[in-house]
Amino acid sequence: MSIENISVNKSFGGWHKQYSHHSSALNCKMQFAIYLPPQVSSGNKVPVLYWLSGLTCTDENFMQKAGAQRIAAELGIAIVAPDTSPRGDGVANDNAYDLGQGAGFYVNATEMPWSKHYQMYDYVVNELPELIESAFPVSDKRAIAGHSMGGLGALNIGMLNPLRYSSMSAFSPISNPVNCPWGQKAFTTYLGKDKSTWLNYDASELMKQATQFVPAKVDQGESDNFLVEQLKPEALQAAASASGYPLDYQLHEGYDHSYYFIASFIEDHLRFHATHLKK
Amino acid sequence: MSIENISVNKSFGGWHKQYSHHSSALNCKMQFAIYLPPQVSSGNKVPVLYWLSGLTCTDENFMQKAGAQRIAAELGIAIVAPDTSPRGDGVANDNAYDLGQGAGFYVNATEMPWSKHYQMYDYVVNELPELIESAFPVSDKRAIAGHSMGGLGALNIGMLNPLRYSSMSAFSPISNPVNCPWGQKAFTTYLGKDKSTWLNYDASELMKQATQFVPAKVDQGESDNFLVEQLKPEALQAAASASGYPLDYQLHEGYDHSYYFIASFIEDHLRFHATHLKK
Repeated sequence: MSIENISVNKSFGGWHKQYSHHSSALNCKMQFAIYLPPQVSSGNKVPVLYWLSGLTCTDENFMQKAGAQRIAAELGIAIVAPDTSPRGDGVANDNAYDLGQGAGFYVNATEMPWSKHYQMYDYVVNELPELIESAFPVSDKRAIAGHSMGGLGALNIGMLNPLRYSSMSAFSPISNPVNCPWGQKAFTTYLGKDKSTWLNYDASELMKQATQFVPAKVDQGESDNFLVEQLKPEALQAAASASGYPLDYQLHEGYDHSYYFIASFIEDHLRFHATHLKK
Repeated sequence: MSIENISVNKSFGGWHKQYSHHSSALNCKMQFAIYLPPQVSSGNKVPVLYWLSGLTCTDENFMQKAGAQRIAAELGIAIVAPDTSPRGDGVANDNAYDLGQGAGFYVNATEMPWSKHYQMYDYVVNELPELIESAFPVSDKRAIAGHSMGGLGALNIGMLNPLRYSSMSAFSPISNPVNCPWGQKAFTTYLGKDKSTWLNYDASELMKQATQFVPAKVDQGESDNFLVEQLKPEALQAAASASGYPLDYQLHEGYDHSYYFIASFIEDHLRFHATHLKK
């Protein structure tokens, strides 16, 4: 597994770096970003927070806009931001912003032509951590977080792999994709018309069925334009109540779906993850 | 003077807002962003930091990438980010990134066709503050800061108006534009071939001649690709020594010209300005 460095920026005493590599899970060239906190320069292995971005994003949005490096540097946590889908000329795509490149939904597609490249679940759960843990001074302590489509991905991946992640969190997740337009469109396309297969990637369904618990934190803006039609946090709350899942859910008056919301509360998320990563 | 709201995002308990308005100084429609800290909701008038961005930027770069809102919210400071030049189909332009739209250099152009719109000095010093102070709950306490081309603008504007600004600061300013390619190209174009007129906008020249002092802070990355050819901080340091100007200049090992550098040290700049704004 070879990786190629694209950029390096010093940031809060640590380093923001971008790399490209060939992904065997996705069958294409991929790019990711990593923030390495200053603690790694003294030979320490640090835990890793994986950040999954939302529709249309790349590895850059979170690193440029969330302001997470300050707190990661204080806490000694690395952050890895993958892209949101496979990319490239040979990769299936769609003109819509909510399907195809930039909209992988962190699932393993089963429908042609998508299944050839759209295996984001495998990439994020297996291939990328293996690569990160072999190439960088990081431990095998992992947490996962994300925003919107990436919030859904983080919750799904955390709940499907409770032994791999110390904690999970989401901003404004697509909480019940089988019942919203974004999810129905993506899942029909990537997974086919048999809705029983969709339930494997529905955070509310997984939370309702859960018996092993990963500490979970979700924050949602009350003025989010997508709240009612697409995000449906009430389904996630009901699921947590049904299974007794330890979900810390908070609604924030006046905040929207943007990175201004994420930046305002990312410190809380990093401190939450640090508590569990350092146990 | 009417302004039109374009967007609102809640951020750290305050509000990031974008507006458009007709600028009479620039003779075109302009856009700016303002961050209003939470303190304004209790009827307080807060001081204002004007942020001048660098080449190719708009009102958005600083607001999205610097992470300044957290500290502005704590300190009770508003931040105003204007665009970096006049804009629009009828406004003179150039294909190069370092001339024309996105590259106004915060000067009053005297050469045709530029002089019709490129009056960024007047816009930033007079028209914009007048508009801000009439439309928002802010006081007439002002500070000014910027990056690269905007760092030059902030230092020039601060030194040319020592009674209007409590303090000034810059990240990686173009310190001696009359002696670097960016400055020579822009000043030849906007101000003409008579180099004596350029000296009015050369921060090192102004600092050397200064007799009234504005508290000044400059931070520079040692790994900045533009350091030697374009930025020339040694000229500014020599000028400060010559006039006894109170310049706090710091060079930071490993940091580059990007917003990752600005984000790492913006807290220091805001606390520096707060000290002087609240005197």
